[in-house]
Amino acid sequence: MSVTEEPAETPLVGQSVITLDTLSISQIRDLLHKAAYIDANRKRVAHTCDGRVLATLFYEPSTRTRLSFETAMLRLGGQVIGFAGAQLASVSKGESIADTLKTVSNYVDVVAIRHPKEGAALVASRAASVPVINAGDGGHMHPTQTLADLATLQSRFGRVTDLTIGLCGDLTFGRTVHSLIETLCRFGNVRFVLISPDELKTPRYVIDRIKATPSCSYVEVKDLVSVIGDLDVLYMTRVQQERFFNEDDYLRLRDTYILDEDKLSKAKPSMAVLHPLPRINEIAVEVDADPRAAYFEQVKNGMLMRMALESSVVGDQLPGYEPLDPKEVQA
Amino acid sequence: MSVTEEPAETPLVGQSVITLDTLSISQIRDLLHKAAYIDANRKRVAHTCDGRVLATLFYEPSTRTRLSFETAMLRLGGQVIGFAGAQLASVSKGESIADTLKTVSNYVDVVAIRHPKEGAALVASRAASVPVINAGDGGHMHPTQTLADLATLQSRFGRVTDLTIGLCGDLTFGRTVHSLIETLCRFGNVRFVLISPDELKTPRYVIDRIKATPSCSYVEVKDLVSVIGDLDVLYMTRVQQERFFNEDDYLRLRDTYILDEDKLSKAKPSMAVLHPLPRINEIAVEVDADPRAAYFEQVKNGMLMRMALESSVVGDQLPGYEPLDPKEVQA
Amino acid sequence: MSVTEEPAETPLVGQSVITLDTLSISQIRDLLHKAAYIDANRKRVAHTCDGRVLATLFYEPSTRTRLSFETAMLRLGGQVIGFAGAQLASVSKGESIADTLKTVSNYVDVVAIRHPKEGAALVASRAASVPVINAGDGGHMHPTQTLADLATLQSRFGRVTDLTIGLCGDLTFGRTVHSLIETLCRFGNVRFVLISPDELKTPRYVIDRIKATPSCSYVEVKDLVSVIGDLDVLYMTRVQQERFFNEDDYLRLRDTYILDEDKLSKAKPSMAVLHPLPRINEIAVEVDADPRAAYFEQVKNGMLMRMALESSVVGDQLPGYEPLDPKEVQA
Repeated sequence: MSVTEEPAETPLVGQSVITLDTLSISQIRDLLHKAAYIDANRKRVAHTCDGRVLATLFYEPSTRTRLSFETAMLRLGGQVIGFAGAQLASVSKGESIADTLKTVSNYVDVVAIRHPKEGAALVASRAASVPVINAGDGGHMHPTQTLADLATLQSRFGRVTDLTIGLCGDLTFGRTVHSLIETLCRFGNVRFVLISPDELKTPRYVIDRIKATPSCSYVEVKDLVSVIGDLDVLYMTRVQQERFFNEDDYLRLRDTYILDEDKLSKAKPSMAVLHPLPRINEIAVEVDADPRAAYFEQVKNGMLMRMALESSVVGDQLPGYEPLDPKEVQA
Repeated sequence: MSVTEEPAETPLVGQSVITLDTLSISQIRDLLHKAAYIDANRKRVAHTCDGRVLATLFYEPSTRTRLSFETAMLRLGGQVIGFAGAQLASVSKGESIADTLKTVSNYVDVVAIRHPKEGAALVASRAASVPVINAGDGGHMHPTQTLADLATLQSRFGRVTDLTIGLCGDLTFGRTVHSLIETLCRFGNVRFVLISPDELKTPRYVIDRIKATPSCSYVEVKDLVSVIGDLDVLYMTRVQQERFFNEDDYLRLRDTYILDEDKLSKAKPSMAVLHPLPRINEIAVEVDADPRAAYFEQVKNGMLMRMALESSVVGDQLPGYEPLDPKEVQA
Repeated sequence: MSVTEEPAETPLVGQSVITLDTLSISQIRDLLHKAAYIDANRKRVAHTCDGRVLATLFYEPSTRTRLSFETAMLRLGGQVIGFAGAQLASVSKGESIADTLKTVSNYVDVVAIRHPKEGAALVASRAASVPVINAGDGGHMHPTQTLADLATLQSRFGRVTDLTIGLCGDLTFGRTVHSLIETLCRFGNVRFVLISPDELKTPRYVIDRIKATPSCSYVEVKDLVSVIGDLDVLYMTRVQQERFFNEDDYLRLRDTYILDEDKLSKAKPSMAVLHPLPRINEIAVEVDADPRAAYFEQVKNGMLMRMALESSVVGDQLPGYEPLDPKEVQA
């Protein structure tokens, strides 16, 4: 999809979600609105998906993501089948992903798939006769993580725009960061502060995406402390040792990008700290108790967005839910 | 059980199903009838097994079969516990299958067991105080696969008799083929066309079973194309390389038994293609779109038959279901 | 906790259960009372936990325990998510137990955790914002096994006191035996008969616990047959070969402590045989049919106590349940 082209408005029911590019801005806004409604009406929505079954097909383990998808369906009244990593052997036996999806389409109403190969989720969605949600395929895409990030901005600030957003750490390989930047560019009106060592700078195509968005801007810096006071949001990422040529570089840089109470003391009281988790040591445990820490809220928001998404693609209405006024959506 | 002896009529409730030999023809007909009823009344039967729990004890992984058993119980309103392959270690710790079944009998209403050893399911059923369904034990038996096959004939032709049924590929080691032939002989009035290379012919005891059935007949041939025009049903099987002494023989023969649109063009428009799945390359993907392709329907029918079986052995009535008229059953 | 100090009376709702020491005697009595009520009112309690979700976080596999916790929640109308052993890899990725629990607290209402390291369950309970139940951590504690043992005494004798209880086999390393003795000392009025080879005697701190309880007494013996006639309860344990310096010692001793019908013929008709399971060969299979065999009842009682515990810590009332009269509890 080109930078300026938005997907046609189609109802979400029956739709697979492989990348966020195929969701329109108003569909994403509606999902954010639904997530907030679900959070405020847990009991009322608890039978929305009665009789539905979700399959979690995890060709590589990702327990956190799997449990989030599964809880989402269970909290809506539905049921779950599936496999994860270690049980994979049986599925393989040489069977193609397409055949597995054609089989599982007979069992369930919606599939969440995780696969180490880029493009696997798309192949799956073409073979399936039920909606397929990409729960991560290779280095490519992980759309529900980005939805969780957006929902956390929305719940903290009441908006996902008009924010100064710092992204810190490994900006080269962190796919969640790229996906978030690209999606925020579609919403517009975001100032990005890209904080990384030279070895881990933001790739050219992501920078180009920001440049092509008149309402967005960016700066690239190396020093977290010098900019932390300007930020509304600080999105932390893991800096993995294997990205470096030698251990000295890794150790020197690692600590520069660790968020602790000392660095946090220079930030705005309203700043929100996000992290896709799991963290290793990028955020000191002492930060957890700070009201600015939003990364465990992000986990909750991920579950809520998956509830919104799962109920939407299977076509179940949340009882009592009123869609956003289209005018408000466009506004 | 001898060839001519049929099991006594007993209600299916409380009964374990280790082989199809212990089900009477009228019990199997009733299961077929139930499966069709379930398919037409998905919502109405969705609470048939409320409060029930199924255990899937899979001592070897078989994800497809496990997911089918689990979905069947969930679609009836019940719940599922269990383990599969990789989690096995904990169960072993030297515990006997009998002790595991005595334990699990305290938790659940019905068990589906898969085990690499022949006879394991029978041992399990003797120890358990709840019904046990064999989900495959060694090379021995896999009764619910045969039920899925029968249900596919029933839904395509309205009957499982008066058919010319070709079985193609590995007829020596394919247990599903043997079980299907033996069960169809009990129903009678089937013409079998056994299509295989010399290396993979039907075993003597299966041939003897057909010979002992006056209303059935068979021919053995090597060439699929020459007979495909006569068939009502073509049951394809995997030809596994490890069955051959050398790779040349394997490669030469393999392609002879691959079903593609070209071979299919010589078949009746009403022919049904079955396959127990997973397929490797015995059926070209182009065939999937042909209305004669019935192998993914077979997956659905497997789930429906497991729904019929699970609800029957735990003794839960399908709401609104009327059993077959016994006269009709005998007819 | 010192020997004489009892925990303060607090409601069980919201409480983690890491060791039985934090449960008061009257709380344990109430759980026993609830378990009996649940057993007699299976249908009536089947929706007690509707809408609840349990997480089973099993960092080491223990299928029996996991299935018991899961069945307990399902039988109360709740749902289950989790992982077990083999799927662990994904969780690790360097993430701390604390972070995993903070994450999972967003998904579920109660957690059952099993971990190979002592103290892991306590760490988990401190990080979680929902109740955590210890399903076994290292050699340390496994409180729900002891609750299953107590429930079996209660259901067989109508009491857990005024009994002569033999404990037989490996009394050095068997943590279930130590936990049972310590808990029974809190109830008081128990005569312990400690039956083991010299190599596997009861540790000093456990003996001291009995000595510090005026209403309890003990004897240590080597020979099962000589004392079996005095026992109300015989608690058997596994004697593991790796506890011995050489195989000869193991083989000589092992058979001494195997319970068979011959030895059992010298016991009271009302004696109850318990075993934490799985058994290897400590109890001959022929004993299973003897009405004194209570070890599979113990499995059922374990599930019932977990139902009592799970519903209590999440704060769901069992419909129709009347708590024990406090006077009766104190009596």
